[in-house]
Amino acid sequence: MNVPVRDVHASTPASGHLTLDRVGIEGIRKPLLVQRADRVITLGASFAISVDLPASRKGSDLSRNAELLADTIDWPEASPVASLESACATIARDLLTRHPYASRSEVSGEAEYFLSRGRPGGRASLENFGLFASAVGSRNGGAVDVRRSIGAEAVGMTACPCAMETARSQLREEFPQLASPELEALPIVSHNQRNRTRLVLELSGVEEVEADRLVEAIEAAQSSPTYAILKRADEARVVLDAHRRPKFVEDVVRDLLASIPARFPELSDGDVARVRTTSEESIHKYNVVAEHRATFRELRALGSA
Amino acid sequence: MNVPVRDVHASTPASGHLTLDRVGIEGIRKPLLVQRADRVITLGASFAISVDLPASRKGSDLSRNAELLADTIDWPEASPVASLESACATIARDLLTRHPYASRSEVSGEAEYFLSRGRPGGRASLENFGLFASAVGSRNGGAVDVRRSIGAEAVGMTACPCAMETARSQLREEFPQLASPELEALPIVSHNQRNRTRLVLELSGVEEVEADRLVEAIEAAQSSPTYAILKRADEARVVLDAHRRPKFVEDVVRDLLASIPARFPELSDGDVARVRTTSEESIHKYNVVAEHRATFRELRALGSA
Amino acid sequence: MNVPVRDVHASTPASGHLTLDRVGIEGIRKPLLVQRADRVITLGASFAISVDLPASRKGSDLSRNAELLADTIDWPEASPVASLESACATIARDLLTRHPYASRSEVSGEAEYFLSRGRPGGRASLENFGLFASAVGSRNGGAVDVRRSIGAEAVGMTACPCAMETARSQLREEFPQLASPELEALPIVSHNQRNRTRLVLELSGVEEVEADRLVEAIEAAQSSPTYAILKRADEARVVLDAHRRPKFVEDVVRDLLASIPARFPELSDGDVARVRTTSEESIHKYNVVAEHRATFRELRALGSA
Amino acid sequence: MNVPVRDVHASTPASGHLTLDRVGIEGIRKPLLVQRADRVITLGASFAISVDLPASRKGSDLSRNAELLADTIDWPEASPVASLESACATIARDLLTRHPYASRSEVSGEAEYFLSRGRPGGRASLENFGLFASAVGSRNGGAVDVRRSIGAEAVGMTACPCAMETARSQLREEFPQLASPELEALPIVSHNQRNRTRLVLELSGVEEVEADRLVEAIEAAQSSPTYAILKRADEARVVLDAHRRPKFVEDVVRDLLASIPARFPELSDGDVARVRTTSEESIHKYNVVAEHRATFRELRALGSA
Repeated sequence: MNVPVRDVHASTPASGHLTLDRVGIEGIRKPLLVQRADRVITLGASFAISVDLPASRKGSDLSRNAELLADTIDWPEASPVASLESACATIARDLLTRHPYASRSEVSGEAEYFLSRGRPGGRASLENFGLFASAVGSRNGGAVDVRRSIGAEAVGMTACPCAMETARSQLREEFPQLASPELEALPIVSHNQRNRTRLVLELSGVEEVEADRLVEAIEAAQSSPTYAILKRADEARVVLDAHRRPKFVEDVVRDLLASIPARFPELSDGDVARVRTTSEESIHKYNVVAEHRATFRELRALGSA
Repeated sequence: MNVPVRDVHASTPASGHLTLDRVGIEGIRKPLLVQRADRVITLGASFAISVDLPASRKGSDLSRNAELLADTIDWPEASPVASLESACATIARDLLTRHPYASRSEVSGEAEYFLSRGRPGGRASLENFGLFASAVGSRNGGAVDVRRSIGAEAVGMTACPCAMETARSQLREEFPQLASPELEALPIVSHNQRNRTRLVLELSGVEEVEADRLVEAIEAAQSSPTYAILKRADEARVVLDAHRRPKFVEDVVRDLLASIPARFPELSDGDVARVRTTSEESIHKYNVVAEHRATFRELRALGSA
Repeated sequence: MNVPVRDVHASTPASGHLTLDRVGIEGIRKPLLVQRADRVITLGASFAISVDLPASRKGSDLSRNAELLADTIDWPEASPVASLESACATIARDLLTRHPYASRSEVSGEAEYFLSRGRPGGRASLENFGLFASAVGSRNGGAVDVRRSIGAEAVGMTACPCAMETARSQLREEFPQLASPELEALPIVSHNQRNRTRLVLELSGVEEVEADRLVEAIEAAQSSPTYAILKRADEARVVLDAHRRPKFVEDVVRDLLASIPARFPELSDGDVARVRTTSEESIHKYNVVAEHRATFRELRALGSA
Repeated sequence: MNVPVRDVHASTPASGHLTLDRVGIEGIRKPLLVQRADRVITLGASFAISVDLPASRKGSDLSRNAELLADTIDWPEASPVASLESACATIARDLLTRHPYASRSEVSGEAEYFLSRGRPGGRASLENFGLFASAVGSRNGGAVDVRRSIGAEAVGMTACPCAMETARSQLREEFPQLASPELEALPIVSHNQRNRTRLVLELSGVEEVEADRLVEAIEAAQSSPTYAILKRADEARVVLDAHRRPKFVEDVVRDLLASIPARFPELSDGDVARVRTTSEESIHKYNVVAEHRATFRELRALGSA
């Protein structure tokens, strides 16, 4: 005979008659099967899954979060998902069924994923990028509205335009030949370093955005992409490319945001692009960062200004 | 003869005529001398220092951020500061002088700090806590308004009230004596674990809030504080204390927020308290979290409800 | 016309006529396809790949390390590997072909992998474990000898046997009934916490050891495994199980090592087992650790002692 | 009345009649007061403190480790120590008194510390470096022998000598003027990046080695130190300096080790120097590393070869 145990979670909180913004689980790891055009890939993914909690209730039934995640993505029972963000959106929606007392749900996922990369003419290999998604569900009458975001992060390289200019000036005193018109275009030494840039798109509609396009946009805005395999001639070309496109972190953010309207013409004016870029400065022990958030409407206005 | 080098930062950006939200440095480490009542202590601190950047300007003069930080806190030139948050506020204000093109500045600092802790009757020793501060400066005519926040984080312990209830029920089947009135109050096994709770106060005025008071508030809301030195009898008492005050993460957040008005009567209704608590669950490989943000007005209304 | 560039790596070092122990790359990330009995799984893996460097040579040709890794595991060109450790062994062997000047090679890989886990009668789901492998190659005449190791890490739970004993003693003063023979077996509150245990086997021969067996051995030595999905009754049973098998970190190490000879009868006397266990103490802000390294010969002698 | 509780730690282990290599605590944080020539500084330090455990004993009395640490360094009771390594040595010695059943003790400490740094002619400021120490105690009759090590880590910068050579060759095709004798010495673009180098000295005797000397040795072996404050002209000079001293990780290790005998003439032939250097490559997403360990005898023989 099982005497029913008191439902502690459903009891009244002792203090603080307070609706809580967010109660959930985080850092739960899963292998996520994703259906791509030609095959199924597996991503090692980490999830954070939460809902709000009404003032009348002591606890949130958190085992439902882990169950729902397993229902949605644990194979062999579950099929591959279309994308990390579609998995997040499904879970955000279903959370509000499993937590009938909640009015708002939040799911975020992040994963590492791999793309084939190499210098033109050089050897390509698989390289790692970051993938980010989130979904926020909210009740709308009997229905649930879900807003999603998708993001990617790529590590590339920047060379500093300012140090290059100053070094050229200093070197001209030592090497007067540098003042000759023939050497005006010579790339000059500067500090260069790892640049880590993240682009996130906040979507108001149901569009699907392929993460590969985010990575391409980021890499085009850095001084140069970086590569796992570089034979000597390729290594020198990467260095030269980067010094011919020197960029501040400010340039990375602006150039990336300026490229967004043409790259994502299908997105709505109310959609949002967020960029954060970090330069792991070779000449300092600390990092330099720049970030900006803008609507597509603002970004489109720039182009027509 | 020094030919003046072109000021690359002041030049016009190539693309994206965009005011940037934030450009700065982060992860810059410093030893911070802080004047306490009885002596000067040193905190190992990390800072992030940024301003916005107008659309007309290619780059932010970032060496000024590092210079200003050194001017403010590098000894022996600089005197001890009153607190981490006062240092942040000073820097936020001065940033807008050093970056005349900026309209907004942000400074955040975090540090580890130590307090003496021990069980009543047991041996006390120095234990580590987290300290957090931020300051946001904005121009207001010729003046600068600065809004500050101060936060602390303490690691303590929670024991789960639900598992305890269910375990009691299961043990009663095995040990019918547990149903006796004499054993009703016996603390029963549950899962317990490290709890990491952060409390941040966003201040609208110029009040100074001692971080020690934040730590005390947090520790009082956990099932028990934890200690570096516990002889056997003390260890058992900490365990018993925690099981007599079992807490969900939801309880930690609510109990902490409910205690705020009485602990900080001097703060304004418009000031804000934010709590985030993380339970490093002993029965799961992932964490459980709860968080909430409320104005003092809301928290004071709770008490009178 | 390509003027041949001077081979800087092959030139003579400026100072320090010193053979270097180890030169290589580390933190290179790859998706690793592994052939399991029933299907191919993908692991997100990180590799460190190095060789020694003779005194006569300025630099090691490091692009070969990244090329060899891509040759061995980058799909679609490469087939799934048998295991992480077989991939490491292959690379360790081939490194000495690609670096003809080297006498020793080292490869280590680590990855996250997932197994289905759940309490008997409860819901199972996919949970994360750590996987570790290394291979050391050394020239032996014209051939290459390779020694491998394989390891796994599992997060589980320990409950402290000492605090339980002391708490029982303290509770007996408060609840004299606890001294009754009927309540002698009652599990008593103690501190419990996440336990992280790693087992590594250093193999002298060519045996293949399935990582799942390492995880099973670890989980059996902790007070209890932990699970992603625990409904209330299961949660209480995990708590009760753990308190009925209280363990110090010392017990985890000894019980695990003592179980090794019976679990791995096929391994040689000269093979080695290493265990390191970390208890993320719920009653302290710091961790407690224990570790030991023993040959199978020593461990087998224990059993017959 | 207190009924004595059974001493669980002193009881016989259930399985595995095994002496354990190491049982202890780790990650315990303390503010460490260190007496320097002119003043007392405070370091935020982290300690790991362990002893071995005989086969006859179930558990190690770990609260003694935390007590001993507090006795040794917690102010106001304790005075400032001479150094991190002297604190480690004191604790390693006393551990064998507090754990009479142990035959070996190990203590390691690490801390962040700050030195004033700036380019000649530029502004100096406080910058962060790593400090490492360890001590191993072992019984020798009734006495305890202690062997110590002291280490430091500095972040600086390296520029690659190979990419520079290849880039020069590629640029000569584009700019034939570069082949002129006047431009032979022109520094050419290369990849440059953060370099993190650690030097550890294992001491057989009682010598005191000032950590500042380790940092100076490391910085002299990198392509250039890095600085928190660099105005434009200084920034360009750091870049030029680095490109005029291009270094592989192999060069950093060799040049550093080659400099050791002259820098530390007082150390014994049996003392050991270990170097590990990491290049956070700007052209790759992964790191490049080199390491070596040599006795002073070996290093001194190099110099006379």
